Amino acid sequence: MKKVVLAYSGGLDTSVAIKWLKEKYDCEVVAFCADLGEGKDLDYIKEKAVRIGAEKCYVADVKEEFIKDYAFKALKANALYEGVYPISTALSRPLIAKYLVEIAKKEGAFAVAHGCTGKGNDQVRFDLSVAALAPELKVIAPVREWTMSREGEIDYAAKNGIPVPVGKENPFSIDQNLWGRSIECGILEDPWVEPPEEAFEWTISPEKAPDEPAYVEITFEKGTPVAVDGKEMTPAELVANLNKIAGSHGFGRIDHVEDRLVGIKSREVYECPASLLLIEAHRHLESLTLPREVLHFKYIIEQKYAEIIYNGLWFSPLKKALDAFIEETQEVVSGTVRVKLYKGNATVVGRKSPHSLYDVKLATYAEGDLFDHKAAVGFIALWGLPTKVYAQVNKKEY
Amino acid sequence: MKKVVLAYSGGLDTSVAIKWLKEKYDCEVVAFCADLGEGKDLDYIKEKAVRIGAEKCYVADVKEEFIKDYAFKALKANALYEGVYPISTALSRPLIAKYLVEIAKKEGAFAVAHGCTGKGNDQVRFDLSVAALAPELKVIAPVREWTMSREGEIDYAAKNGIPVPVGKENPFSIDQNLWGRSIECGILEDPWVEPPEEAFEWTISPEKAPDEPAYVEITFEKGTPVAVDGKEMTPAELVANLNKIAGSHGFGRIDHVEDRLVGIKSREVYECPASLLLIEAHRHLESLTLPREVLHFKYIIEQKYAEIIYNGLWFSPLKKALDAFIEETQEVVSGTVRVKLYKGNATVVGRKSPHSLYDVKLATYAEGDLFDHKAAVGFIALWGLPTKVYAQVNKKEY
Amino acid sequence: MKKVVLAYSGGLDTSVAIKWLKEKYDCEVVAFCADLGEGKDLDYIKEKAVRIGAEKCYVADVKEEFIKDYAFKALKANALYEGVYPISTALSRPLIAKYLVEIAKKEGAFAVAHGCTGKGNDQVRFDLSVAALAPELKVIAPVREWTMSREGEIDYAAKNGIPVPVGKENPFSIDQNLWGRSIECGILEDPWVEPPEEAFEWTISPEKAPDEPAYVEITFEKGTPVAVDGKEMTPAELVANLNKIAGSHGFGRIDHVEDRLVGIKSREVYECPASLLLIEAHRHLESLTLPREVLHFKYIIEQKYAEIIYNGLWFSPLKKALDAFIEETQEVVSGTVRVKLYKGNATVVGRKSPHSLYDVKLATYAEGDLFDHKAAVGFIALWGLPTKVYAQVNKKEY
Amino acid sequence: MKKVVLAYSGGLDTSVAIKWLKEKYDCEVVAFCADLGEGKDLDYIKEKAVRIGAEKCYVADVKEEFIKDYAFKALKANALYEGVYPISTALSRPLIAKYLVEIAKKEGAFAVAHGCTGKGNDQVRFDLSVAALAPELKVIAPVREWTMSREGEIDYAAKNGIPVPVGKENPFSIDQNLWGRSIECGILEDPWVEPPEEAFEWTISPEKAPDEPAYVEITFEKGTPVAVDGKEMTPAELVANLNKIAGSHGFGRIDHVEDRLVGIKSREVYECPASLLLIEAHRHLESLTLPREVLHFKYIIEQKYAEIIYNGLWFSPLKKALDAFIEETQEVVSGTVRVKLYKGNATVVGRKSPHSLYDVKLATYAEGDLFDHKAAVGFIALWGLPTKVYAQVNKKEY
Repeated sequence: MKKVVLAYSGGLDTSVAIKWLKEKYDCEVVAFCADLGEGKDLDYIKEKAVRIGAEKCYVADVKEEFIKDYAFKALKANALYEGVYPISTALSRPLIAKYLVEIAKKEGAFAVAHGCTGKGNDQVRFDLSVAALAPELKVIAPVREWTMSREGEIDYAAKNGIPVPVGKENPFSIDQNLWGRSIECGILEDPWVEPPEEAFEWTISPEKAPDEPAYVEITFEKGTPVAVDGKEMTPAELVANLNKIAGSHGFGRIDHVEDRLVGIKSREVYECPASLLLIEAHRHLESLTLPREVLHFKYIIEQKYAEIIYNGLWFSPLKKALDAFIEETQEVVSGTVRVKLYKGNATVVGRKSPHSLYDVKLATYAEGDLFDHKAAVGFIALWGLPTKVYAQVNKKEY
Repeated sequence: MKKVVLAYSGGLDTSVAIKWLKEKYDCEVVAFCADLGEGKDLDYIKEKAVRIGAEKCYVADVKEEFIKDYAFKALKANALYEGVYPISTALSRPLIAKYLVEIAKKEGAFAVAHGCTGKGNDQVRFDLSVAALAPELKVIAPVREWTMSREGEIDYAAKNGIPVPVGKENPFSIDQNLWGRSIECGILEDPWVEPPEEAFEWTISPEKAPDEPAYVEITFEKGTPVAVDGKEMTPAELVANLNKIAGSHGFGRIDHVEDRLVGIKSREVYECPASLLLIEAHRHLESLTLPREVLHFKYIIEQKYAEIIYNGLWFSPLKKALDAFIEETQEVVSGTVRVKLYKGNATVVGRKSPHSLYDVKLATYAEGDLFDHKAAVGFIALWGLPTKVYAQVNKKEY
Repeated sequence: MKKVVLAYSGGLDTSVAIKWLKEKYDCEVVAFCADLGEGKDLDYIKEKAVRIGAEKCYVADVKEEFIKDYAFKALKANALYEGVYPISTALSRPLIAKYLVEIAKKEGAFAVAHGCTGKGNDQVRFDLSVAALAPELKVIAPVREWTMSREGEIDYAAKNGIPVPVGKENPFSIDQNLWGRSIECGILEDPWVEPPEEAFEWTISPEKAPDEPAYVEITFEKGTPVAVDGKEMTPAELVANLNKIAGSHGFGRIDHVEDRLVGIKSREVYECPASLLLIEAHRHLESLTLPREVLHFKYIIEQKYAEIIYNGLWFSPLKKALDAFIEETQEVVSGTVRVKLYKGNATVVGRKSPHSLYDVKLATYAEGDLFDHKAAVGFIALWGLPTKVYAQVNKKEY
Repeated sequence: MKKVVLAYSGGLDTSVAIKWLKEKYDCEVVAFCADLGEGKDLDYIKEKAVRIGAEKCYVADVKEEFIKDYAFKALKANALYEGVYPISTALSRPLIAKYLVEIAKKEGAFAVAHGCTGKGNDQVRFDLSVAALAPELKVIAPVREWTMSREGEIDYAAKNGIPVPVGKENPFSIDQNLWGRSIECGILEDPWVEPPEEAFEWTISPEKAPDEPAYVEITFEKGTPVAVDGKEMTPAELVANLNKIAGSHGFGRIDHVEDRLVGIKSREVYECPASLLLIEAHRHLESLTLPREVLHFKYIIEQKYAEIIYNGLWFSPLKKALDAFIEETQEVVSGTVRVKLYKGNATVVGRKSPHSLYDVKLATYAEGDLFDHKAAVGFIALWGLPTKVYAQVNKKEY
């Protein structure tokens, strides 16, 4: 019998999808569930998938792989979509797609399936990742395909013996992994309304944060964070750790009207304590160690990087080429950054590096200044020459 | 007798320069002093210039002109050099240069002069602004030219009856105007050391800021802020006002290792409560009102804009062309942004506009969704087609 | 009875569409046909449309409007998609769409229609132009919608008394206007095969071009060509004229594997004698009159410009903002460019301008050199300072 | 005795420099002369250097190294400064500088020297290359430093027994290597005057080129040309070969008003048959094999690449990072390009590759079309959605 491999979360949509796929495609469903740091009970989910009708359910703790091979690459790119969002959800989709494809090959499935709707960004990321890794595989998106409303889904679940979540529904739609937590829907759909406290789980409100600041020192090796306050940690440990520290000081909230690839603006709220903190620290270390020409051109690379991953092109030759650029720049991005955390603020207050290009003997205005002040005259003469010639030729009003 | 027009601040360097210019160039010195919001005593400075030997001293309160014609243009460009510095000092130099040139023409001077050293950015901004406005004028930079140390200057002043500042010297070098305050030198020259509280004047430390948050609503018309909490103000009033409010909540500090045009890195500390607050608010309003294509390409424009002004090209055809681009985009950037101020944070928590492109009927996941979910299938099929074809042709490992 | 306004070319597709629209939508069809320089017989086309069943047929000679308001704006941007294609067809679609919308408003139509297929770029340009100008109008694309093959269309035409073209079919698919002629299909679909001579109509083969070169001088005013060999002409006359001259010398052929917005590569052949000639001349004049900073940043603007118009965004705020940038730069782009035409080559051999920034007294290596050679020492010292500091800090292998 | 290593060409400037350096710096001079394809008589030059007073003279045939490690990297970047100049001279300077540094280290020299003037680009390239490779070495530029006119040099030579070139002086200033030949000065300094035939040596005039076209097929492996007409060649052989073939058909002349780093415009004439031909062929192969997203972003990379190398940053971290990007993209750029040469034209008329992304089954308008035409409807709906929403919200006039 033919098979479909389904990205299974344990929630209503993908639970209904197990049954729906079997009926619609007359196939067996192999479920897959990954833990990226949401704190999932993988055993329970596995058992539930099978109970509902999946032939089997693969589970995997991919936290270390996710942070090491996905999030930390984005960190080297200081990847922030539209300057604010650390693309946490966008980074997780290609990883899950990679597992879906691997399992599909192992199981001989003809298709993979995911629970995305037709209006979000995630469908694009799944569909394109699969197209890049296994263009011969079909991708099925049951929720995009069926015409059931939420009530219809609940009816369908009831009729098919699928457990329906009881009690008060979460008023928000949530996706989370170690790199960040996204919060959508409900009251947040009005961009004039301040996000209510109950939207947040990882960050305390600045008002309730400790009255004493905390300092944290992050050590980087070639662009990768390796230690906090001198203590070495694995990638996922380090991020989990910083999520806790920074979140406990009220740092990491984002409130943004965002442009989705599918052509609409949506109001997105995020909690990203560790990722925002690490990007801020990494940027300061780059300011110290990268020459101006690299730094300024890297901004262009960074913007493109965030954009294409947001748009689903993680597995693409452009992404590989941008990575090659970025990787080359990180060779000297080693050192330590000191950050002060206090009631919602994460302020870099110190940075040092064996590769520091800051040279106090050139920069100082005190004794010991080695800078050649006379050179400036010649420099400005030539740097300003086009301006001068232009002014001589064209009597322009400003 | 030939004349030089000198940008005069009242401090030691430019006071010594009055005498030095007269001797060195055998000329009369006409001084000029502008108030850009530093809270200068223009009468006192005028009297001092003449007392030291200037033939006369022009003074001008240019606060409104500065904010309206310089700072608010940069605001429309969200101009932040290296992503962090609102180019406040850089914006003031061309304005002063414009006055120097006007006075030089009126007075028939052969040259203008400024008090910049040979290693900062400001010499470039003065020299290029004058070259653009009056390429026939010579520019003299006495401090860059003479070889006196600070002690030498004090001796020279003493010998020439020039008042020398007494008492403990300010350990920092300061430049300020309504758009921001820069702090350099002293202990700040070590980028690992946290800036001490005494470096700051406009911002209280977050720890000492009020325990209650404040909300402020800023209204923009075509990209220009026109009102605070519904109260209309002139440009300079509005900025002065926001400097106070935001500074009193501990917001607006910047700590940055910066790349100067003259090829060195320097550690710069700034206080920019109003400018940072306005840029943040303006950006959020743009997210709401500008289409994605404009928004994303405008990032490239913005980076270039900040860079060329930082580098002295305010009066240049490239600046004019970038302004034309930006001005065209601002037509729809009208509306109100709500910002919460609390202990160092300025968080945008609401935004609204008659030109809002956020359409709840498209974005909502609730009933009333007008988005065509089926369209996504076709969209992704074509958006992903190059990825698919590439994967079919090239068996690439990711 | 409700109405549709159809972009009518007189060919088989749109002739069939008249009948098909009436049946499918139970509506009247108002036809519109524009002459953009294809040499159409508008009277005949008008009569044909009505004969087939259109309620009426508007016709318009829009050559001057097209060149002045569309092509010459693209010229100022040196707009070449992927560096080679002067977007001639892409420029014509928004103009036609504008007329469709105007007529639809006048006639009270509920929709406009065009004859594009589902795999080209033109459907995008029509659909988006209408969406921008009149978002309330429906856009119908009969050829994209119906499922008839070419044979099916011919049957349908025969049954419905629609004249069918007789004789040998053109082996290529052609679109043309004064700015260029596109040739697709047939043997051209193999990118290894050299385009055969019969594909070309506007350009003689270089081998058959005259043995004597010709020189042509083109005069620009603020970026717009106004005269050829000193003779003033209207925009459309000038372009028609240059198409003849340059084409008769074998210049203007393009052979390109192009990336369509819909995600595929296609092999495109073009003849664009006037547009390529004008862009080449215009670029040389810009090299003479624009300062380096403007010139180099304008390349980024130009690439974006060509890309968004290719992708259908003529009527868009980004296009308006790019136009504002470009227009501002053209103020000084006046002067004359001399081009030598010879057997397929158009070589700029001279350029002059009252705004020339080329200053022989600075550039010359002969006597009279005013360039300050010593300034270079200071210039290089500072321009190279980051390189030197980087090398001192990092012992890098190259 | 201390030593200086001088880049020695055998011409008047560097011959005089041997003596001048010895006197001025009281040092020994070690000469170095490289053959980059100028057809130099290295034995003669070596002997001459020693005869004039050099302690010794190193010579090296670096043609293969130059093309392989410098020119072919630039080819992968399609590097054309200001869109036209293949940076041939700019590429040679860092290579020579590398040898100067190596010899300086071996000989224990305290400085290297070159014969550049103070107003060209080459001084920058030498100075920065040395700064990057050996920041501790001093760089001396005698011609920039001394104040002799050409007549002064001739006098100096006569007095010091340095051979002076006799007979009619070349009216042009020439620099050449396998990647191109630059021609400056004399009548060329008037940008309105057509370059005279005697300026050219590598290219016949199109009028005198053969009446029969020639076809040449160039095979690339991962972006590097490896064979001509199926015949494998070493890099330098291949380029020398194409210079001959293309030059003999009148192809490869460039006439350009160029922006130098030192702030002036200069009129430059070049002959670059092989480099222009290879770049054109390489671009066409990239059009066939690179996905649109890579292709379009690579334009930005390419522009930056040409610019920074033109400006002397060959040995720089930015250059290395750009190379990493480019190298990654070239993996699939293998295949063959067919070029027709005829009287000044080099026209790509065919291209094929095992990595071709052109898929006739998607592109064809004939039977066998596999493209999903219906997908376009969904695609355009979402691609055009921002345009539509913008139009609904803002009644904008176009």
